[in-house]
Amino acid sequence: MEQPALLVVDVQKGLDEPWLGKRNNPDAESNIALLLSEWRNRGLPVVHIQHCSKEPDSPLRPELPGNAFKAEARPLPKEKRFQKSVNSAFIGTGLAEYLHERRISSLVIVGMTTSHCVSATARTASDLGFSVTVISNATAAFECTGHDGVNYSAEDVHNINLVSLNGEFCTIRSTEEMLKRFA
Amino acid sequence: MEQPALLVVDVQKGLDEPWLGKRNNPDAESNIALLLSEWRNRGLPVVHIQHCSKEPDSPLRPELPGNAFKAEARPLPKEKRFQKSVNSAFIGTGLAEYLHERRISSLVIVGMTTSHCVSATARTASDLGFSVTVISNATAAFECTGHDGVNYSAEDVHNINLVSLNGEFCTIRSTEEMLKRFA
Repeated sequence: MEQPALLVVDVQKGLDEPWLGKRNNPDAESNIALLLSEWRNRGLPVVHIQHCSKEPDSPLRPELPGNAFKAEARPLPKEKRFQKSVNSAFIGTGLAEYLHERRISSLVIVGMTTSHCVSATARTASDLGFSVTVISNATAAFECTGHDGVNYSAEDVHNINLVSLNGEFCTIRSTEEMLKRFA
Repeated sequence: MEQPALLVVDVQKGLDEPWLGKRNNPDAESNIALLLSEWRNRGLPVVHIQHCSKEPDSPLRPELPGNAFKAEARPLPKEKRFQKSVNSAFIGTGLAEYLHERRISSLVIVGMTTSHCVSATARTASDLGFSVTVISNATAAFECTGHDGVNYSAEDVHNINLVSLNGEFCTIRSTEEMLKRFA
């Protein structure tokens, strides 16, 4: 098995704001912590992505406490971080060049949210030629209301975003399946 | 209202292959034809994207009849075309540079499929700073089966991909709503 980098996307305190609505998969953060621990124990590369929003209402603006990493995903000093202000971690960051320079061609993506930054990042990664795995239960989504006025549950948004990536942009695996591949 | 370009993504014959499964919104092509007609009548910019797959099993490989544009979306000789082999029309094509040179900052996206190339293209367009509208009933999706073995209907895949774009990456409008804005 190639040695993939773990890409940890937007695991930040501001995404706990109640007005964001109902979220699925409360275990996402603990699964991310498990995967981070495995990557660190094996000395594999870890890259952290931090959303620094320019939107007036975002809890992820750089000057707000919500911009901080959650405890489960706090970077070690030696681990690489990129900051972004859009959804895909590849746009405006130099992430692709960083990975190419280190001959990293395989990425395992975790973080928030399934439908926005995780999906956008996985799609760009695949289109740029990286081999991508997204960990189904190490990401999560929020409920949302469509242009049609219909409310879609967080679980449906999560599942259908994963199925839309599966096969076309990436492989979907659970945390347990991923850890077994190292065993 | 700014004068947006109509970006017509992958309206190609190969997507009628029965093995692709059940599709929603059989009216997508006729709505695309309506919008193309309006854009042409008003002399607004139209850009066509043609998928030229490198995948062995794809009906959109350049040497196959399925690579051809459908009648409803056939480019006029004077209209710009870009060919791509990945999902986002912005990766590897020079599309962003083409639009910037012409000072086009607003895009209306139609075509196939909601969950793959339309979503990927809308996401990249927004992340690159374009103002984006996706036309809900001028795109369509296929049913798909997830990593979890669950089958998701084409309509659910379509709707949840649109709601995942809405507000974050673009505005969603119907063909009728879009045409009314010109009236």
